[in-house]
Amino acid sequence: MSLSKLQKLIGYQFQDSDLLVQALTHRSHGALNNERLEFLGDSILNLAVTRFLYDRFSDATEGHMSRLRAKMVRRDTLADVAREFALGDFLIMGRGELKSGGFTRDSILSDAVEAIIGAIYLDGGLEIAQERVLVWYESRLGELSLSESEKDPKSRLQEHLQGIGASLPQYEVIQTLGLSHDQLFTVECRSESLEETVSGEGTSRRMAEQAAAQAALVALELEPG
Amino acid sequence: MSLSKLQKLIGYQFQDSDLLVQALTHRSHGALNNERLEFLGDSILNLAVTRFLYDRFSDATEGHMSRLRAKMVRRDTLADVAREFALGDFLIMGRGELKSGGFTRDSILSDAVEAIIGAIYLDGGLEIAQERVLVWYESRLGELSLSESEKDPKSRLQEHLQGIGASLPQYEVIQTLGLSHDQLFTVECRSESLEETVSGEGTSRRMAEQAAAQAALVALELEPG
Repeated sequence: MSLSKLQKLIGYQFQDSDLLVQALTHRSHGALNNERLEFLGDSILNLAVTRFLYDRFSDATEGHMSRLRAKMVRRDTLADVAREFALGDFLIMGRGELKSGGFTRDSILSDAVEAIIGAIYLDGGLEIAQERVLVWYESRLGELSLSESEKDPKSRLQEHLQGIGASLPQYEVIQTLGLSHDQLFTVECRSESLEETVSGEGTSRRMAEQAAAQAALVALELEPG
Repeated sequence: MSLSKLQKLIGYQFQDSDLLVQALTHRSHGALNNERLEFLGDSILNLAVTRFLYDRFSDATEGHMSRLRAKMVRRDTLADVAREFALGDFLIMGRGELKSGGFTRDSILSDAVEAIIGAIYLDGGLEIAQERVLVWYESRLGELSLSESEKDPKSRLQEHLQGIGASLPQYEVIQTLGLSHDQLFTVECRSESLEETVSGEGTSRRMAEQAAAQAALVALELEPG
């Protein structure tokens, strides 16, 4: 595959094309691979999205911005970006990964996007790398609205589980402490999607359920902990 | 308290001192507080430390760098930085937090340090904010070595628990699958410091224990997940 084609798609021409090659190299190929660049690129992506959200949503709380950011930087979003560049066609992998179709896997694709961001940072500097992120994310960032992050945790969890075709989560009060007007409830949340049962506490059953749903969203890595 | 004293300590003179005041304001004081600046500053801190580690440890794996970074950006390290600036004396808090000694709490101190980083970024730009982080962290970053991150997870967990005076973790094989030469072990790790039991899998008991210890380090927020 021609690297010049990829450079047109991502909108950046490398001075040192070895950096781009390294960013495209999965660890199954050998010791010189994209893992270190991914580590670097992840922090640029994070900063670029954070600054965008800070400026765009000037009234948003830290919690709202944090949820919106998590949605932007999570694996499946990055893999979608990768697919827009047909990045799978350019990846350099070991035979085993090639045969098992590694170039279609979300984790490998998303890592490569972060590595490319890191490579652009080293090659062209921080401003240019941030600018590329914002261009690649333009439509996604444009569609973000606070309202979607303002839904309560139970609603967000339910929507996610419905979206992946899982059954609805079960909530159960497992402990009640204190007297009738000053009680502390502990609620467990169970779902086939969760590896472990999670729980939450609150001064009402409703609040404890919301806390348990929030813990489930964190355990599912859909939201920051 | 005089803000000019604090500005000398942190080594940065604000053009817009309202930003510094906001960075010092805990949410208990009111709606205009440091939470949004903290969100911003966290991403700058992360980038500054990441770039430092990338340059300094040119042979380190992503995993090693990730553990070193976690050590630098975690709450107690940030609270130490705050105490070097006597930041507790400058915090602006609601009465309740003041009375309960909120200005000594790690969480409040570390959030304020991140907020100050965010405020410097908005006031003086990215380069200056990154440079301040590196100056504040100079001795800590200088003391980092790869060897400490190369210890295995069980050793790291044990050292942490000993350090806080907790009893040693308990490991137990809870499941063994497969035939004698192709087995998968599941080990649970329990500790009084863990809110929940965590587990790990591996093709040997030893490897499953290491995986469980790693999960414990993540659950304790000592290392990235």
